[in-house]
Amino acid sequence: MEIEFIRWLRGQLPPHPELVVGAGDDAAVLRPAAGGDIVLTTDLLADGVHFQLGQCGPERAGRKAMAVNISDLAAMAARPVAAVVSLALPREGADCLARGLCRGLLEMATRYDVAIAGGDTNTWPGALVVSVTALGQLTARGPLRRAGAKPGDQILVTGSFGGSILGRHLDFLPRVTEALWLHEHYELHAGIDVSDGLSLDLSRLAAESGCGAALNLDQIPIDPAAFALAAADLAGASPLEHALHDGEDFELLLAAPPDAARAILADQPLNVRVTRIGEMVPQPGLWQAHRAGELKPLAARGYEHR
Amino acid sequence: MEIEFIRWLRGQLPPHPELVVGAGDDAAVLRPAAGGDIVLTTDLLADGVHFQLGQCGPERAGRKAMAVNISDLAAMAARPVAAVVSLALPREGADCLARGLCRGLLEMATRYDVAIAGGDTNTWPGALVVSVTALGQLTARGPLRRAGAKPGDQILVTGSFGGSILGRHLDFLPRVTEALWLHEHYELHAGIDVSDGLSLDLSRLAAESGCGAALNLDQIPIDPAAFALAAADLAGASPLEHALHDGEDFELLLAAPPDAARAILADQPLNVRVTRIGEMVPQPGLWQAHRAGELKPLAARGYEHR
Repeated sequence: MEIEFIRWLRGQLPPHPELVVGAGDDAAVLRPAAGGDIVLTTDLLADGVHFQLGQCGPERAGRKAMAVNISDLAAMAARPVAAVVSLALPREGADCLARGLCRGLLEMATRYDVAIAGGDTNTWPGALVVSVTALGQLTARGPLRRAGAKPGDQILVTGSFGGSILGRHLDFLPRVTEALWLHEHYELHAGIDVSDGLSLDLSRLAAESGCGAALNLDQIPIDPAAFALAAADLAGASPLEHALHDGEDFELLLAAPPDAARAILADQPLNVRVTRIGEMVPQPGLWQAHRAGELKPLAARGYEHR
Repeated sequence: MEIEFIRWLRGQLPPHPELVVGAGDDAAVLRPAAGGDIVLTTDLLADGVHFQLGQCGPERAGRKAMAVNISDLAAMAARPVAAVVSLALPREGADCLARGLCRGLLEMATRYDVAIAGGDTNTWPGALVVSVTALGQLTARGPLRRAGAKPGDQILVTGSFGGSILGRHLDFLPRVTEALWLHEHYELHAGIDVSDGLSLDLSRLAAESGCGAALNLDQIPIDPAAFALAAADLAGASPLEHALHDGEDFELLLAAPPDAARAILADQPLNVRVTRIGEMVPQPGLWQAHRAGELKPLAARGYEHR
């Protein structure tokens, strides 16, 4: 199938000002516009693990594969530039599946001005695997890292959490504009995108920063989907538990010094709400903040790539 | 398994002067040394398709996954800089398998001065899939493309062809130094690395260049492995047929104007022999050159990613 598919795909790919040589050679050649450092990230999605192809269809699977990578660029406050895509396709219906995937990949790439710079298509006896690598470029402000949060920093999040499995994990929009805007206009100490779970990803940010994080559980913005899931949930998890541990929210989780946090919360400069959910503390680990200032340990749980 | 494995892996990764932020954040940050354009390529390898894990073991599989990507950079005459690796691991024995793969990936990365900049590990019910994306940088000479060959150009190859399945497809060394040296010191019009088969990849180079290619079949350097395979081959393919169509030789296939080709052949400036195997011709397609100057059609066959 490769030749025909590649020919079709090359016809679908729009030109891009930063793409000097695109799909069809041994490799792509890129000339990122500004002089900033290059950011590189990769995420692999497999049918039955990260999506159910039979339920969501190839376009939404392709869309998600591109979006999760763009979300990692957003988490570094990098501007998306280009992506390459590797596919392992089940032999039966490979061509049709590949075209559906590419439509989804392209829709997302076009929306975020990402050049699809090349790829590798294979068929095999196994289930669908989509691997995307995205390349971005830092602004003059440098990277927004996981390390860098300090005790006293306020913990901020965009959007709401929990129940993404009901659809949001496929249809979310990575917070690129939001991350770039906040990073440019306010002082941020650290950031991560919530992919594996709010509690787990916050505990990772805290560990990389060499401190701890205390959450005000009554301030976590809970998504309506978390309530819907809790209402239907036989296992009995509460909406808050879904918000803390479900993952795949792909919202920004940020640590900002108090003054910057106060300004962001007052300005609300994004199209999505920014909420304060806690504070970085000197004690390593994840904590639940109480009114009296006392801390109770909180379990960091989420999707551990098992 | 991810946390423990990532911790182990981070201990294995040597620092690299062009890697500003390595594995462990949302994405890697790279600062390529020179100012040249960025080259990006990706190749996905699956157990049972590109290697037989049970026979070759994880280290050689990992080695190959890195090497095929470096070979694509070589084919563009790009200097390797960094790579990211995505894994879909069978659940059983995932940790041990991942470590073996990484040893092979790292061995090859270290040899070619490639920073392993990050990755994504997943377990799933399927067989092993390894996807590598490699990033390189062009020299001041720019890219060596598939397009650019002209009628009259001489067709040159490094090394020998055929029978790579007997082991060379796992243990080859990508021709990076060779491609960079030739591209710097001689005029080359086009180049490709032979992954899918000498005849098929040559026909692709010709098609991208808008001309044809005529091979002198008696000049093809046939690898001893092609003779060994032919001797054992029940299907009755000759050593020459193996050399033409087997693929995974990962040798350089170049088109050079006559003067440059003459100089390369006389100088033999590489540690591997360079051989002239034919000439680019105005007639599109792949041809067999006869003594009298007459052309007979030749089938382009090879590994078509079916």
